[in-house]
Amino acid sequence: MEKLQTLYNILDLAGTFVFAISGAAAAKQRGLDLFGICAIAFTVACGGGIIRDVCIGAIPPSGLANWLYLTTALVAAVTTISLYPFIQKLKHPVLLFDALGLCLFAITGAQKSLAYGHNAEVAVLLGVTTAVGGGVLRDILLNRVPVILQKEIYASAALIGSLIVVAGNYFQVISNDWVSLIALLLSFGIRLLALHYQWNLPVFEKDKTEKEL
Amino acid sequence: MEKLQTLYNILDLAGTFVFAISGAAAAKQRGLDLFGICAIAFTVACGGGIIRDVCIGAIPPSGLANWLYLTTALVAAVTTISLYPFIQKLKHPVLLFDALGLCLFAITGAQKSLAYGHNAEVAVLLGVTTAVGGGVLRDILLNRVPVILQKEIYASAALIGSLIVVAGNYFQVISNDWVSLIALLLSFGIRLLALHYQWNLPVFEKDKTEKEL
Amino acid sequence: MEKLQTLYNILDLAGTFVFAISGAAAAKQRGLDLFGICAIAFTVACGGGIIRDVCIGAIPPSGLANWLYLTTALVAAVTTISLYPFIQKLKHPVLLFDALGLCLFAITGAQKSLAYGHNAEVAVLLGVTTAVGGGVLRDILLNRVPVILQKEIYASAALIGSLIVVAGNYFQVISNDWVSLIALLLSFGIRLLALHYQWNLPVFEKDKTEKEL
Repeated sequence: MEKLQTLYNILDLAGTFVFAISGAAAAKQRGLDLFGICAIAFTVACGGGIIRDVCIGAIPPSGLANWLYLTTALVAAVTTISLYPFIQKLKHPVLLFDALGLCLFAITGAQKSLAYGHNAEVAVLLGVTTAVGGGVLRDILLNRVPVILQKEIYASAALIGSLIVVAGNYFQVISNDWVSLIALLLSFGIRLLALHYQWNLPVFEKDKTEKEL
Repeated sequence: MEKLQTLYNILDLAGTFVFAISGAAAAKQRGLDLFGICAIAFTVACGGGIIRDVCIGAIPPSGLANWLYLTTALVAAVTTISLYPFIQKLKHPVLLFDALGLCLFAITGAQKSLAYGHNAEVAVLLGVTTAVGGGVLRDILLNRVPVILQKEIYASAALIGSLIVVAGNYFQVISNDWVSLIALLLSFGIRLLALHYQWNLPVFEKDKTEKEL
Repeated sequence: MEKLQTLYNILDLAGTFVFAISGAAAAKQRGLDLFGICAIAFTVACGGGIIRDVCIGAIPPSGLANWLYLTTALVAAVTTISLYPFIQKLKHPVLLFDALGLCLFAITGAQKSLAYGHNAEVAVLLGVTTAVGGGVLRDILLNRVPVILQKEIYASAALIGSLIVVAGNYFQVISNDWVSLIALLLSFGIRLLALHYQWNLPVFEKDKTEKEL
């Protein structure tokens, strides 16, 4: 299973890279300067993990302490700026890797929370936070309602990945490596199906006349 | 005083429930999907406490680790969605419980900070943060200026509750149970009077021609 | 060098004061009430340091525990409200002290991270965070895209200050006091030159027709 670990590390950096690209592209579209683009790329790539690490007591957060993440995010930012027309054509690969990053982050987030001795609820909530936190921070910084709160099955795929990891850890029927493989395939599959068929969670009728409570 | 503690626990969950309803209602009005509504309900109910716990070193934050809070928030979200017309009619009870939640959260927030050995200033600031943090996060996520920074005596009631707890802890003249009862009655009373008479803190003339510094 | 330390402490409070003024002025322009103005003044002055302290494990954050910061922020808020026309005329001194606060916060932020035993990357990233975090939180609360992500060399000056501190700590050729003096003069000088000549980092053509990834 050592090869699997190496594969996960590579996929983790691939997810970081694609998350950073989505941040850099959004920042560029808003007319931010070079620092702004790099800062948002890094935030999307590492923000969720930093929140998770602060909440589980993993000080300093690995997103701040491990130079690989910062470097990956900066390379992604520079790539986005210099190859923008090319990146735009890559819409499908980007959505693919974004989905992969989402599911990987959810799984590794839940695993790390369990490894620090926290309970199932913490692991599930912080698995999802790891996966979607960066995107939420990006939208807060760019002054818009986070898209993940509005769009097709996205955070829900992360939730399923985290739940499988926690359930596998609880029942201990099969090894954790197999559990995370199953969690990855299932959550990734659901996300891809949601993208393909544009599945959405129910939205409830928006009533313009409603008063706030 | 054991009955008082049980009463506090029940009121704490009632406050969590009402805070979550206010989040779910605001999210529903913005057209968020099911996940978005649940996420914002949970954020309003537990966000302030999570920030407090991270700042006082209570890892993992009890909002993440205690399933009662998550369950309460999810039940509130589902209730809001399914009984929306009914919830809207409940405006007065909701404001009442919101005020109760606000004051309770301020008091328990200040107490928990003191219990972790922090000083008076930390306790006062984090008492207020516990009480208003969730609402501020809700407004940040929904992309608007936090209402608590603009409306009738709200955070100020939380501040008074926290101050009384800290003063009581310092002078030790009466037992902490009595102190928190006094703090609750006083801050809750002030909040209700502010609601009834629409008391506001002074707002200073807004000059449209002002340039930013 | 003890005199230098005293000087730094005074400059640190001067920076806190001016950061708080910038927050209070922005909050007043948005029509926030007295509590809102004080809350935003405090957030701008101490927000960056609180995020840094949470990330390096300095619990409780000194911005919450040291009454000097809170008092300075509140005095700045009251000063801004009562002397607003006068404060507006002070545009140049305010920009000067803001630049000084920025560079000082970056340097002390990097130093504190190193003092807590973290590595160079953590120190650089949290140095910048200390310097610009408060301003970013202000803009998030006031519902706008953070100006520091858009304007003339600002965060970059903080980055240079942090980098010099970390490099000085690594090579140990001269004493840390001299290093921080050099870092301060260099980053402050760059910021002043950027202000004077309106230097900006490159912004890339904003294409309105761009689709989001």
